[in-house]
Amino acid sequence: MIDFQTDPSRYRHWRIEQDGEVAYLIMDVDPAGGLSTDYELKLNSYDLAVDIELNDAVQRLRFEHPEVRCVVIKSGKDNVFCAGANIRMLGKATHGHKVNFCKFTNETRLAIEDATDNSKQIYMAAVNGSCAGGGYELALATDHIMLVDDRRSTVSLPETPLLGVLPGTGGITRVTDKRKVRRDRADFFCSTEEGLRGTKAVDWKLVDEAVPPSKWKDAVDARAKELAKRSDRPASGGIRLNPLKREITDKGATYSHVELEVERERNVATLTVRGPSDSVPASIEGAHKLGDQFWPLTVARELEDAILHLRTNEPAITLVLLRTDGNAKAVLDHDEFLAKANGDWLMREISHYLKRVLKRVDLTPKTFFALVEPGSCFAGTLAELVFAADRSLMLIGTQEGDNRAPAAITLGGANFGPYPMSNGITRLESRFLGEPDQIEAARAKIGQPLEADEAEALGLVTFAYEDFDWDDQLRVMVEERVSHSPDSLTGMEANVRFAGPETMETKIFGRLTAWQNWIFQRPNAVGEQGALKLYGTGKKATFDKERV
Amino acid sequence: MIDFQTDPSRYRHWRIEQDGEVAYLIMDVDPAGGLSTDYELKLNSYDLAVDIELNDAVQRLRFEHPEVRCVVIKSGKDNVFCAGANIRMLGKATHGHKVNFCKFTNETRLAIEDATDNSKQIYMAAVNGSCAGGGYELALATDHIMLVDDRRSTVSLPETPLLGVLPGTGGITRVTDKRKVRRDRADFFCSTEEGLRGTKAVDWKLVDEAVPPSKWKDAVDARAKELAKRSDRPASGGIRLNPLKREITDKGATYSHVELEVERERNVATLTVRGPSDSVPASIEGAHKLGDQFWPLTVARELEDAILHLRTNEPAITLVLLRTDGNAKAVLDHDEFLAKANGDWLMREISHYLKRVLKRVDLTPKTFFALVEPGSCFAGTLAELVFAADRSLMLIGTQEGDNRAPAAITLGGANFGPYPMSNGITRLESRFLGEPDQIEAARAKIGQPLEADEAEALGLVTFAYEDFDWDDQLRVMVEERVSHSPDSLTGMEANVRFAGPETMETKIFGRLTAWQNWIFQRPNAVGEQGALKLYGTGKKATFDKERV
Repeated sequence: MIDFQTDPSRYRHWRIEQDGEVAYLIMDVDPAGGLSTDYELKLNSYDLAVDIELNDAVQRLRFEHPEVRCVVIKSGKDNVFCAGANIRMLGKATHGHKVNFCKFTNETRLAIEDATDNSKQIYMAAVNGSCAGGGYELALATDHIMLVDDRRSTVSLPETPLLGVLPGTGGITRVTDKRKVRRDRADFFCSTEEGLRGTKAVDWKLVDEAVPPSKWKDAVDARAKELAKRSDRPASGGIRLNPLKREITDKGATYSHVELEVERERNVATLTVRGPSDSVPASIEGAHKLGDQFWPLTVARELEDAILHLRTNEPAITLVLLRTDGNAKAVLDHDEFLAKANGDWLMREISHYLKRVLKRVDLTPKTFFALVEPGSCFAGTLAELVFAADRSLMLIGTQEGDNRAPAAITLGGANFGPYPMSNGITRLESRFLGEPDQIEAARAKIGQPLEADEAEALGLVTFAYEDFDWDDQLRVMVEERVSHSPDSLTGMEANVRFAGPETMETKIFGRLTAWQNWIFQRPNAVGEQGALKLYGTGKKATFDKERV
Repeated sequence: MIDFQTDPSRYRHWRIEQDGEVAYLIMDVDPAGGLSTDYELKLNSYDLAVDIELNDAVQRLRFEHPEVRCVVIKSGKDNVFCAGANIRMLGKATHGHKVNFCKFTNETRLAIEDATDNSKQIYMAAVNGSCAGGGYELALATDHIMLVDDRRSTVSLPETPLLGVLPGTGGITRVTDKRKVRRDRADFFCSTEEGLRGTKAVDWKLVDEAVPPSKWKDAVDARAKELAKRSDRPASGGIRLNPLKREITDKGATYSHVELEVERERNVATLTVRGPSDSVPASIEGAHKLGDQFWPLTVARELEDAILHLRTNEPAITLVLLRTDGNAKAVLDHDEFLAKANGDWLMREISHYLKRVLKRVDLTPKTFFALVEPGSCFAGTLAELVFAADRSLMLIGTQEGDNRAPAAITLGGANFGPYPMSNGITRLESRFLGEPDQIEAARAKIGQPLEADEAEALGLVTFAYEDFDWDDQLRVMVEERVSHSPDSLTGMEANVRFAGPETMETKIFGRLTAWQNWIFQRPNAVGEQGALKLYGTGKKATFDKERV
């Protein structure tokens, strides 16, 4: 099992050195610290183990260190910044692992950009030595790239010439769309093994500044302090992200407010999210005091871990049934608390974190059916799960022998702004593309429990069924879904889920990733004579020269 | 060799019946008329042969029939509109053929939309019987879909449930982004073999109207006449598209103004476009009289055929060197003639056609290097080839023993508007993304021959070399390029070429196509037990259930 939970006391590849409002996030990969002993993580190359720590560090810096206003990513090794993803690992990995690895690393890089943009914890990269492939892609995720201006410090994306694959962790997209490097230069750069250095790298917009070695340390420190000035973070008051209360067994995973049950033989899992057990704190200070036990943060952490676990450790699961359990009003109260306290750095962090977790759901290659039944609490933030789902089924009225109130969906302000999808618009906006009236009709119902007929009329659920129909309809729908080709479902969902506008983010997960996944299936990369397979063996790849 | 040239006298699958300003484009596929005898084109299913005729018909309707204001696509068979791409063909086709086939069919559907939007020759679909997969995708390319409201007329996208692939000819994208079908309904629709019919198909926005059989013929005729009213096309004056003057040999292809030389052993081709031999006609009438011998139209047709030939019949060519030969002023004069006469329907057609041909270049999976040398005429429309190229090399000064003037690029109005790329912006706007000043600097030079130093300073070419360097630089660059993995190059170019905004078109060729190509490589579709492979054999596919 791959575990996405860690903490700094267990890091083998990163360390954080703090200097007031600047933190230095230092990459110093332990060659023997990879997920497998099949490969050595030389030259600061990385595998998923390294990125799990990076993800944890980015997260903790946001929550545990409000006083950090600028994060400088640098290398702990002398002549290399980072050699990128480990090639031996990629060469040996299954297709599924490669795809999952790239998705997670992409999400981590986007989290770095989210921290810069939305937490005002501004990232920069101080690049010494060779910065190649995934190494440069890591630098690209920061807001400012500094490069030592010497003979040996270079940035490069050598994937095409060396490995026959793409710089798939956003590299091409960030070069063309974020840094706006001219397309013919991007073409040259992406097909040149040795990369570029010094002032030419600046001229081509690949880095922001090149600094002579003699001035390097001072220039980096000064730049970090300058970037820190853009920040509005407070000077203290971080909270601790304690280890999750979690039990993972062969049957699933149990958290304090999230429950995952897997039925591998049916290819189905059930993911239940429970509403708050407590009412909202009396004050913002009260919420700070609750720390990671404040429900919105707890549920974000637990849901995220469950989703990552599903993706990585439960490949046989095709379909996830999404359920909620609890009190809708308590969910809405917490949403309102977050919204009202938006000027508070921690509440802002939690809101952006929920946004990122919901995005992980959108990007998960599993089908989601939301089941809206009596006792559920699909309200506000949790109603986003209905809109993130591929389909939603809602029970009309009550179930025999159950005297709870009929199922309802309750909309809140959370459904109209704070949680945009990767495409930059809300789930309701994606749902009602080109139909602003539908969105206004939904907005007019904020706070009102919408039972099945009304929810269906408003277009909020896919199907509503009476009790006598429910079990059969659900059973048939589930059986049908899991009978389809998993690959076709993945491709279909990747297209259907993201209607409307595109962003750099959707381009990375749509266009760039899809092409990379295609290449990851091609003999020219992964065949016995393929470039990725033969890298490092001294043998030269033999290509089928057909252009497709 | 697959030939993209045809004419109505040779059609086996389509016929055109004209009723005044309405043309009925009738699909009546000859089961024995496919490209191969390996399969029968039953139930109006299609292969590339059918689509080559459709492409020809769409083109001729625009140029030869200005009087046609509405085109109704319908079936010549009784109980079926169109069963989509032939599955036996897809099951047996090589990966390269499938990819090429899908690209061409996608371009044809986009040409239908371009005719509706820009030629005001408005397409609608009159759907009787089963309209499945590629059949519905064809209907989706029209502006208005009518469906017989009976028990058996349905629209469906059964690719996922039946074949384990995607509706890859724009189907998913047009359902979500053009018709704006709600995402959960799109999910249901795309995974339901039997599709939808009647008023439910209307409610779900899958078709525009459902009409009872008794009123069908009148309703279709009336709707066609109504749509025709939106048109501004003249009542007569079509020109004839005569067979191309063309000689295709083992060494390449020779046209009147285009020359293609292939060197398969080097994986390199040279494509030379010649400027106008004559000066512009004295009047618009003169241009009409020239018909398909008017240079801009001639060169569009020849360049298009050469590009399609390269893509389909020359898979071993990795790299195309783009050259021009002729008089820059004559090119600019023709551009100006087209621009000034833009109110004339035929000049408008030619301009949009050039736009489509240049888009085909952008979408061609070959590397393009433009070579700007003395004697070349990269001006206006032909300068777009420089900006469409992955890189451009320009010679500084003159070549030894050549007393022609130094190479120059001359910009014209044609570089600032009439030829947007698939992403909706011009090639210069894509090139200078986020740098409007660069575009204005270029615009200020309209009409001035820009020699190498100036062109390089303006960012119009990638590299400028002196004569003594030229041959070596070019040789090394070509050798390097063709040594790379063809798949990696395809993926890289598909990303680097389309920076900036996204449109339905780029989503189709980027996201949707890339996922489809991935699926087309997966054993779940194309393996011995794959769904696409086994379709029609009575055997059920066996899936690897891993979700990736």
